[in-house]
Amino acid sequence: MHWLPTSSPPSLVRQLVSALISPSSSLLRPLHPPVSLLSRRPLTASTLPMPDGDDSLLRKALADKLATIQAQANAVRQLKASGAPKSDIDAAVQSLNALKLDKASLETQLLQSATNNRDAFRQALVNTLERRLFYMPSFKIYRGVAGLYDYGPPGCAVKSNVLAFWRQHFVLEENMLEVDCPCVTPEIVLKASGHVEKFTDLMVKDEKTGTCYRADHLLKDYCKDKLEKDLTITAEKAAELKHVLALLDDLSAEELGAKIKEYGITAPDTKNHLSDPYPFNLMFQTSIGPSGLTPGYMRPETAQGIFVNFKDLYYYNGNKLPFAAAQIGQAFRNEISPRQGLLRVREFTLAEIEHFVDPQDKSHPKFSEIASLEFLMFPREGQMSGQSAERVQIGEAVAKGIVNNETLGYFIGRVYLFLTRLGIDKERLRFRQHLANEMAHYAADCWDAEIECSYGWIECVGIADRSAYDLCAHSDKSGVALVAQEKYSEPREVEKLVIAPVKKELGLAFKGNQKMVTEALEVMDEKVALQMKADLESKGEVEFYICCLGKNVTVKKSMVSISKEKKKEHQRVFTPSVIEPSFGIGRIIYCLFEHAFYTRPSKAGDEQLNVFRFPPLVAPIKCTVFPLVQNQQYEEVAKFISKSLTAAGISHKIDITGTSIGKRYARTDELGVPFAVTVDSRSSVTIRERDSKDQIRVNMENVAAVVKEVTDGQSTWDDILKAYPLHSSGSVDEE
Amino acid sequence: MHWLPTSSPPSLVRQLVSALISPSSSLLRPLHPPVSLLSRRPLTASTLPMPDGDDSLLRKALADKLATIQAQANAVRQLKASGAPKSDIDAAVQSLNALKLDKASLETQLLQSATNNRDAFRQALVNTLERRLFYMPSFKIYRGVAGLYDYGPPGCAVKSNVLAFWRQHFVLEENMLEVDCPCVTPEIVLKASGHVEKFTDLMVKDEKTGTCYRADHLLKDYCKDKLEKDLTITAEKAAELKHVLALLDDLSAEELGAKIKEYGITAPDTKNHLSDPYPFNLMFQTSIGPSGLTPGYMRPETAQGIFVNFKDLYYYNGNKLPFAAAQIGQAFRNEISPRQGLLRVREFTLAEIEHFVDPQDKSHPKFSEIASLEFLMFPREGQMSGQSAERVQIGEAVAKGIVNNETLGYFIGRVYLFLTRLGIDKERLRFRQHLANEMAHYAADCWDAEIECSYGWIECVGIADRSAYDLCAHSDKSGVALVAQEKYSEPREVEKLVIAPVKKELGLAFKGNQKMVTEALEVMDEKVALQMKADLESKGEVEFYICCLGKNVTVKKSMVSISKEKKKEHQRVFTPSVIEPSFGIGRIIYCLFEHAFYTRPSKAGDEQLNVFRFPPLVAPIKCTVFPLVQNQQYEEVAKFISKSLTAAGISHKIDITGTSIGKRYARTDELGVPFAVTVDSRSSVTIRERDSKDQIRVNMENVAAVVKEVTDGQSTWDDILKAYPLHSSGSVDEE
Repeated sequence: MHWLPTSSPPSLVRQLVSALISPSSSLLRPLHPPVSLLSRRPLTASTLPMPDGDDSLLRKALADKLATIQAQANAVRQLKASGAPKSDIDAAVQSLNALKLDKASLETQLLQSATNNRDAFRQALVNTLERRLFYMPSFKIYRGVAGLYDYGPPGCAVKSNVLAFWRQHFVLEENMLEVDCPCVTPEIVLKASGHVEKFTDLMVKDEKTGTCYRADHLLKDYCKDKLEKDLTITAEKAAELKHVLALLDDLSAEELGAKIKEYGITAPDTKNHLSDPYPFNLMFQTSIGPSGLTPGYMRPETAQGIFVNFKDLYYYNGNKLPFAAAQIGQAFRNEISPRQGLLRVREFTLAEIEHFVDPQDKSHPKFSEIASLEFLMFPREGQMSGQSAERVQIGEAVAKGIVNNETLGYFIGRVYLFLTRLGIDKERLRFRQHLANEMAHYAADCWDAEIECSYGWIECVGIADRSAYDLCAHSDKSGVALVAQEKYSEPREVEKLVIAPVKKELGLAFKGNQKMVTEALEVMDEKVALQMKADLESKGEVEFYICCLGKNVTVKKSMVSISKEKKKEHQRVFTPSVIEPSFGIGRIIYCLFEHAFYTRPSKAGDEQLNVFRFPPLVAPIKCTVFPLVQNQQYEEVAKFISKSLTAAGISHKIDITGTSIGKRYARTDELGVPFAVTVDSRSSVTIRERDSKDQIRVNMENVAAVVKEVTDGQSTWDDILKAYPLHSSGSVDEE
Repeated sequence: MHWLPTSSPPSLVRQLVSALISPSSSLLRPLHPPVSLLSRRPLTASTLPMPDGDDSLLRKALADKLATIQAQANAVRQLKASGAPKSDIDAAVQSLNALKLDKASLETQLLQSATNNRDAFRQALVNTLERRLFYMPSFKIYRGVAGLYDYGPPGCAVKSNVLAFWRQHFVLEENMLEVDCPCVTPEIVLKASGHVEKFTDLMVKDEKTGTCYRADHLLKDYCKDKLEKDLTITAEKAAELKHVLALLDDLSAEELGAKIKEYGITAPDTKNHLSDPYPFNLMFQTSIGPSGLTPGYMRPETAQGIFVNFKDLYYYNGNKLPFAAAQIGQAFRNEISPRQGLLRVREFTLAEIEHFVDPQDKSHPKFSEIASLEFLMFPREGQMSGQSAERVQIGEAVAKGIVNNETLGYFIGRVYLFLTRLGIDKERLRFRQHLANEMAHYAADCWDAEIECSYGWIECVGIADRSAYDLCAHSDKSGVALVAQEKYSEPREVEKLVIAPVKKELGLAFKGNQKMVTEALEVMDEKVALQMKADLESKGEVEFYICCLGKNVTVKKSMVSISKEKKKEHQRVFTPSVIEPSFGIGRIIYCLFEHAFYTRPSKAGDEQLNVFRFPPLVAPIKCTVFPLVQNQQYEEVAKFISKSLTAAGISHKIDITGTSIGKRYARTDELGVPFAVTVDSRSSVTIRERDSKDQIRVNMENVAAVVKEVTDGQSTWDDILKAYPLHSSGSVDEE
C-alpha cells in the first residue's frame, strides 16, 4: 500500500472530471471525486440513503411529481402543436414551471432526509458496536487518544476470522510465501522507499495556540459550508468553490496557503490566524538502540519488509517466477486529525501481497477460473465521461485491455470473491480504476476495491501493478541487485542493441548523478533504446526519465552509442514487476459491520431489535447454548453440548441466566451469532437460525456436527433444513 | 508480562542461594542463577551437552575414574584401619590425590566438550534455520539492525500455527475475552503502570566514542573471563568474583559503577574510560499527533491494554467474576545490546492472559481436570537448598501450598499441556518458582515455565498472581474505579468495622499524600483493620503499607478511629486479583526449533541430513506432493491431490523438479514437513512419514482425508498404519 506523490501542476483532466462528477450532478447516486484513502485523499460522504431508511413517501411523491411534469410537458407540446391561444400556452407553461419548483423542493427534502437517515443509521450502528464492545476508543479511562481503537471480544473475533480466511483464500490457495517482519524500521529503508521525503500531509498551525490542522481539511470544510449554508453566494462563486473542492488533492502548499489567505480562513476553535501550510511527515518516529544516533520509524505499510527480502524469497522459491509473498501486520500513520472512526486511524492492520512477475509475461495460469465473474467496474473512461460503474465480466475487461493484464485481473477477481464471501454486499462493491493523475508515474495500472458505506465509497483494497519501481529503488540504495534471471536451456544468438554510455560526457553533464544516468541507460529495454536511437539520430538529443532520480534528464547524441550486434546470450537478467493487492483490514471490517447491520421489530412490536447478519465464516461466536429454564438437568445437557462444541473447535457461549429466551435471542442476534441452541428437553434440542428465525429439532449428540457442517461452509442452512424437520415454534418462543 | 522493580539492598537470600547454585557446583546438570528474561535478567549458558553429542568416551572415562577413586579411597581406609605402615598409607593417599587430579582434568575436558557440542549443535541448527528462511536478520540488504528478525515462510507458518493453537487451547477452551489494542500507547498509561519510571537497564558510555554498553553485561563478562581464563587469581579473588556474579541483578547504579572502577573495566572495543552507569529506559519513545506535545511509547507488553479496559470487560461478562481476557500482539523493548538470536530481541510477539478473580476465592472449577498432571517443578525451597527440579503432581503442589492457589495451579497445568503438545520435550521443561527477592512486593506467587536449550534454562512463560496491583494503579491514576461488586441476594446484617479516618490529623501528617493514605485506610480489609485497631491500642502507632505510594507510613492513634458496628450491607465492593500467564512466543518457537532438530545419516552414509520433528500441529507445511518422475500423467494426479488438499485446508507444496526422490524427501525433512505423498502410479500413491520413514499406499481420492485426519489430531500415524498396508520400499526409495 503506497502513498502517491502529489502530481503538480493541477491537471486539466481533474478539472474536467470535477465538472462531470460534482456532488450535485446526480441526486440519488452521485459520483464522487475519487476517494482514495490509502493514497491519503479525503473521504467524501455519500448521499445515498442507508437501507431501511423511511424516505419512501418522499420518493413516491417525487416519482409522482416527475410523472406529472412529464404529462404537463406533453400537454404544453400539444397546445403548441395545435396552435392553441398564447394565454393557454402561457398558463400551461407557468403550471409546468410551478411543478418543476415543487420537484426541486422535493429533491432537497429527499437529500436532507437521506443525510438524516444516513446519520441515524450510522449512529444506531456505532452505538451498538461500542456498547457490545466490537470496538471502542483506546485508553478510554484516560480520555482516549484520537485515532486509536481497541477491538473488544466480538470485534477481535471478527478480525481474527477475517484474517484466518484471508490466509486460507490467498496464502494457502495460491501457495504464497508469508513473512512476518518487524514494525520498527530503520530510516535507510524508508528513505529508499521515498517515505521519509514524501509521506506527508500539509499542515497549518494556529499561530497563538499551536494547535495543528490539516490544511486541505480546513479549505474543504470552508468550501462545503459556504456551498451548503450561504444562500447569498453568486453562481460564479459557487462554481469557483466547487472547482477548489475538485482540485483539493492537487494543490501545492503555496496554492493551499493562498486560498486560505484569500478566503480568510482562521483556526476553527479560536479564530486565530493560521501559519502557512507546511509538510508534516506522517510516520511515527523513534530511535533504535541507546545511542540516539539511529533514527527509525514505525512502518507505514508492510510492503517494504517483503521488497528488502526479495532475493532470499526468490531463492526460496527455487529462483523461479512468478511467486507471491504476503504479510499481515500492524502499520502506523501519525494522522494530523484522525476522523471517521475505524476508517482513518493512527494504527491499523494491513494484509499485503507482493506478486512478482516477469514484466514480459503477466499471464496467469488460473485466470480462467475467475474470468467469468461479473461485478461492478468503474474504468477510467467511465469516470471521465460521467457514467456510473457497470457490471462487467472480468475476462472481458482484460480481453479488451481495460484491465492491464491477466495477473492484475486475476487478483481483482480473487478480491471480489474474498470480500463477498465475507459478507460485503456485491451491489455496494465496485472496482474503480485510478485516473491517470492519481497513479504514480511508474504504475502500469491500478484499481481500488471500493465499498459503499455511510461515509460514501471507501477504498478498502488497492490492487496496483507497480512495475519494477520498488525493487529498483532498493537495489539502488542498498547496492544489492534485486533481480531475476531467466536461464536459457542453450545459449541464444540474439541481435541485440548494445548500449554503450560515454562516461566522460555523462560525467561532465550530470556530475554526481552520472552513475544513475549511466545505469538507467544500460538497463533500458529494447523498445525504449530503439526509440532513443532513432530520436538521437533525428534530433540530436532526447528527454529521458530516470526512475531513481524521479525526473527527466536531457541525453545528447555524444553521451551514448546504441548499436545492433549479434551476441550469444545464456540468460536474461531483469527486475521483476510487482503486482500488489493491499488490504486495509479495519476498513473492510467496518464496511462489513455496516452491510451486516439491520433492525427488526420485536415480537411485541414495541421496539426495534438490532441484528448483524454475519455469515458463519466471520461471526464472532458461532453458536449460543441456552437452557430454556434454570434447571439442573437442562444445564447438564447444555454443558454436554458445550463440551462437544469445544472439541469441534466451535466458538460458543452458554447463557444460563433466567432471562426470557426471547431476550437471550435478541442479545445474541446483536452479536451476529448465527445459531442458538435451546435446551428444552433431556435428549433433543432446538437450533434456531438468526435471520430466518427457523428452528429445527436435533438430537443433542448431533448438535456439534450440524453446527460445524454449516459454519465450516460444507452445508448451507437450506441443506440442513432438508435433513431436519422444521420445529413449529411453541414452547420456545421469540420475544 | 512485567518488569520487576529492583529490590535493594542486595538480599542475603540471594547471597546464600548464589553459593548453592553457582555454576561450578554440579558438572552435568548445573543449577543456574535464576534466569528471568521477562524480568530482564541476563541469560546464562547451560553446560548441558546437547543431544547427539559425542562425549560418550569422556563420560565413560570419568565414570571409570570415579570408580577407581572409590576403590582407592576404600583401600586407604582399609590401610588406616589395619594399622598399615605410614609410608604405605602415604603412598596410597598420594595415589588417591593423583586420581582426583585426573578426575578434575576429565571434568574440565567434559565441560569443554559439552560447550563445544552445544556450540556445534547451535551452529548447525541456526545455519539450517537461516538457510531455509525460518528466520533471518531483518533489513539484511542494509546490513540489518541488531535485535530485529524476520520470520520467513516456514517460520511464519510455525508462528501462525502456534498462535492458532494458543487461541484454541486458551481463548476458546476457557471462553476468554480476547481483545486487540494498539501498540502506540500514551505516556499516562505507562506512567501509571510504572514503566516510565522503572522500565530501565543501567548503561555506561564510552567516554570518547559515545558507544553504549549494558553495565551489568560488562561486569559479568569481566568476572566470567577472569574466572575462566586467569589462572593466577587467588581463591579469595575467585570467591569474590563469583559473589559479584550472583549479586549482579541486585546491584544499584552506584554499586555497579564502583565495581567497574575498582576492576578497571574499560570499553571493550576501544579500551577508553567509561561513564558512570545511568538508567536507560527500554521503551521506544515517539510522539502522538502533529503537535509534538503528546509523548507516547511503543508498548513494552500487551497487558496494560487489558487492565485499562477492565470496567468494560467486566460489564461485557455480565458483571461476573472470574473471567479472563487475552491478547496477542507485538511488544517492543529497545534493548541496549540485543543478544542470543530470537531470545532477546527489540520487537516480539506476546500472548498474555489476565484472569480476574475474587481475592477471597481463587478456586478453579476445572482444576480437577489437570490435578493429576505430573511434571518437573522447582519450588523456592528446592532452589534454596540446592536440590534439582523434581516431578510433582500439580494437584499435590496446590494441596501442600507449594503453589499458592488453584487458579494459579490450573494455569500451570494448562501451560504444561500447551507447551508439550507443541512439541517441547517434557524432560527439558520445568516450572520454577520465583525466589522471594525476585518477586514484586505485591505478587502473591509467581512461577516461570523454563525450557532448556543450548543457552540454558530460558524463561518462556511467566505465570504470576499479581494480586490487585495493576487495577489499583490504574484506578488511582485515572480516577475510574476498576472494581467488582458482589451483590447480596438480600441485605446482610453484618458486624462491621467502621473505619473513620481523621482527615485533619492525616492532612497535617501526610500533606499531599493525605488522600491516598485516607483511601488506603478506608479500603483495608477486615483482618488488617482489626490488627491495626489492636496495634494502635497497644502501641499508639503502626506502620502501614500504602499500595499506591509503594511504601510504609506511620499511622498514629489520633489519625483513625476503628470501631465495630452493626450494619446492613447490600453488596461487597473489591478490587479483583489478577493471575497473569504471559507467553514469549518467539522464545517458545526458538526452543521448539532446538527440541525438534536432529540429524541422521543419508542412505549412502556420506552426509548428515537435518530433520525437524515438528508435530503435525505446528509443522509449517503439512504435506508435500512429488510425482516420482517428470511425466504428464503423474503431474495430473499430483494436481488432483493438491486441489483436494487445498479444499481440505491443508498447507502443502508440490515439487515437480526432476530431482531424485530421496533429495526431495531430504529437502522437506529439513522443513519439518511430516508427510510426503509420492505419485508413482495413476491411481494409488505412497504416503511417507518423516521420522519413521514408513510408507503406506493410499488411493489418490483418499489422500486428503488421511492427511487431514492425522494433522488435525483425530488420529495418530499409528492409527493410520492399522488401516493401510505398509508399503515395502522399492520403487520409491530414500537416498
